[in-house]
Amino acid sequence: MRSVHVDLGDRSYPIYIGEGLLQEASSYFIKHGVSTKSPLMIVTDSKVAPHYLEALSANLAQGGFTVAAAAVPSGESSKSLAMLEELVTKALEAGLDRKSAIVALGGGVVGDLAGFAAASYMRGIKFIQIPTTILAHDSSVGGKVAVNHPLAKNIIGAFHQPEFVLYDLSTLKTLPPREVSSGLAEVVKHGLIWDAEFTAWCEENANRLLELDADALGYALFKGCGVKANVVSQDERESGLRAILNLGHTIGHALEAVAGYNELQHGEAISIGMIGSAKLGVRYGAPVEVYETTKRALQSCGLPVAVPAHMDTDAIMAALMHDKKFSEGTAVFVVPTSIGSVEIKPDVPLAWVREIVEELKREA
Amino acid sequence: MRSVHVDLGDRSYPIYIGEGLLQEASSYFIKHGVSTKSPLMIVTDSKVAPHYLEALSANLAQGGFTVAAAAVPSGESSKSLAMLEELVTKALEAGLDRKSAIVALGGGVVGDLAGFAAASYMRGIKFIQIPTTILAHDSSVGGKVAVNHPLAKNIIGAFHQPEFVLYDLSTLKTLPPREVSSGLAEVVKHGLIWDAEFTAWCEENANRLLELDADALGYALFKGCGVKANVVSQDERESGLRAILNLGHTIGHALEAVAGYNELQHGEAISIGMIGSAKLGVRYGAPVEVYETTKRALQSCGLPVAVPAHMDTDAIMAALMHDKKFSEGTAVFVVPTSIGSVEIKPDVPLAWVREIVEELKREA
Repeated sequence: MRSVHVDLGDRSYPIYIGEGLLQEASSYFIKHGVSTKSPLMIVTDSKVAPHYLEALSANLAQGGFTVAAAAVPSGESSKSLAMLEELVTKALEAGLDRKSAIVALGGGVVGDLAGFAAASYMRGIKFIQIPTTILAHDSSVGGKVAVNHPLAKNIIGAFHQPEFVLYDLSTLKTLPPREVSSGLAEVVKHGLIWDAEFTAWCEENANRLLELDADALGYALFKGCGVKANVVSQDERESGLRAILNLGHTIGHALEAVAGYNELQHGEAISIGMIGSAKLGVRYGAPVEVYETTKRALQSCGLPVAVPAHMDTDAIMAALMHDKKFSEGTAVFVVPTSIGSVEIKPDVPLAWVREIVEELKREA
Repeated sequence: MRSVHVDLGDRSYPIYIGEGLLQEASSYFIKHGVSTKSPLMIVTDSKVAPHYLEALSANLAQGGFTVAAAAVPSGESSKSLAMLEELVTKALEAGLDRKSAIVALGGGVVGDLAGFAAASYMRGIKFIQIPTTILAHDSSVGGKVAVNHPLAKNIIGAFHQPEFVLYDLSTLKTLPPREVSSGLAEVVKHGLIWDAEFTAWCEENANRLLELDADALGYALFKGCGVKANVVSQDERESGLRAILNLGHTIGHALEAVAGYNELQHGEAISIGMIGSAKLGVRYGAPVEVYETTKRALQSCGLPVAVPAHMDTDAIMAALMHDKKFSEGTAVFVVPTSIGSVEIKPDVPLAWVREIVEELKREA
């Protein structure tokens, strides 16, 4: 078992990474002082529930906890205020009080939704994350939780740190291959922004990762969570450094907004976004190897590196303008300067971005 | 001009209380470092907008600010997730970014709704309060913001402190008499929990307050905000002391839930709740004068001190059980021990509460 400490003063918490942790969940809950006197609510989704909900509920019940559960439809559309309202209905019916905890069992969607429910129910109760995807290694560090608005992703949310994160590698075995790749996008990103050695390791070990080798996965998640924890502990509320985590996300979010989640998964969209950023980096003077290494690392993990040709450039640019990473009318981008290091460019000409989107469409 | 300092470390802020402050709003915005480069959004309601929205917008525009405005329907029903979504739509359309501020111009409903919008939009932007009711003196201190759920009041929210509060006494002149009385309920409460001298002052000066005498009102709001600031600065997130501010609110919220907002305004409901708590206090051994003084102070301000006879006791008790101030199945009440001092009773028998509700119905 590995663990990563996320250092945030009195909001610090550990991430436990290992096989079979779900079978011991209640001991972690007790260790972290979760009250058995107040009911818990597990939030999961329709895909994860059949695999792991019963086992988790049973283990928690054995540990003396009263457990309610809510399974939302799988997919990004569950990150809505309407679903938040439904969860609050269930929480009230189950009698959740200020000492209760909400437990996210699932991927990033479940984590974001359940986390915002925990952040806002009674103005904030305890939150515990049990990620069941690789992608969720990213969202489980740093406390960013949110739901979507029809006009923009993640626009309604909070910073709400979990009590702890329980990362059971066994739950990753039921992931479909496309989601494995999508999850690795954020793993690769953590190498690209912080750690050249880890980037090389990802490329070398891509096949082991794609085959869900527990040793390789455990190490990759430990490293990925570690990079993110490092960044977040220096800038919890994204006033500066934390913005480097947005590498690939500006174009990525725009692509997601235009394509819809079914055509592009989050990791796929940010993979393309990172290629776009690498191209921007080269324009700003980074060696072309930075772009080439980025592309190789992503491709080795089975990730797309071009914008689908049928997508409308105007629509992508319009979605980009709505992105919340624009401040005072200025277009902000994270661009690589070398592998393992990025820079924030506050003033990227939108004409460049458009040219790069067009290039990325031609490469499809 | 008086001012109250709310001492909350790096979330500290001032409350400015005086006549004509709306006419100088932009100077306060500039003094507090609100950026003129990012658009502001004023949230107000259909009753307040015709009186003050134009003047405020014009003054801010003169000060160099870009101002959008949203007027929601007046009344408690605007404190909903649906209305939050509408506000976020407007905020996105107006281009609000991370350096923008949301400004609440209105009473408690507008403050709670706009405050939660500011707390959750992009995971939190600046919030400025311009209260136009007496009741809002209470909600403008301490950063509690929230919307309602069909099953429970204020159940979805956050702690989000404003940058500053601008309390223009001139705006109180358009308040209907019933709202003046309702607002005074929280003023009287702040005396009852903290300051016997101020309680006596309220009773003596009730007529001046009801006539909206600016000197008397300014003093009452200064004292009321001061008591609340004192309590909140010792316990921002209601882990202990802050709970004393709930005097009258346990029964009060239940009455509101059963009666509907049109029959009982918030201040009226908590006035009755405070009488209920005073009766509880006497059962726990407080001198009967505590009950009598409480009753006199509230009645002198034109507030009701009995439960409307037609209200169903079972329904009131059921609503009470949903109240979020119950933790781990225990019924918690704030009860006075003397004038200016209260105690938290964690274990009040519900049978007592029911008897007192019945008594209060017979006194109607």
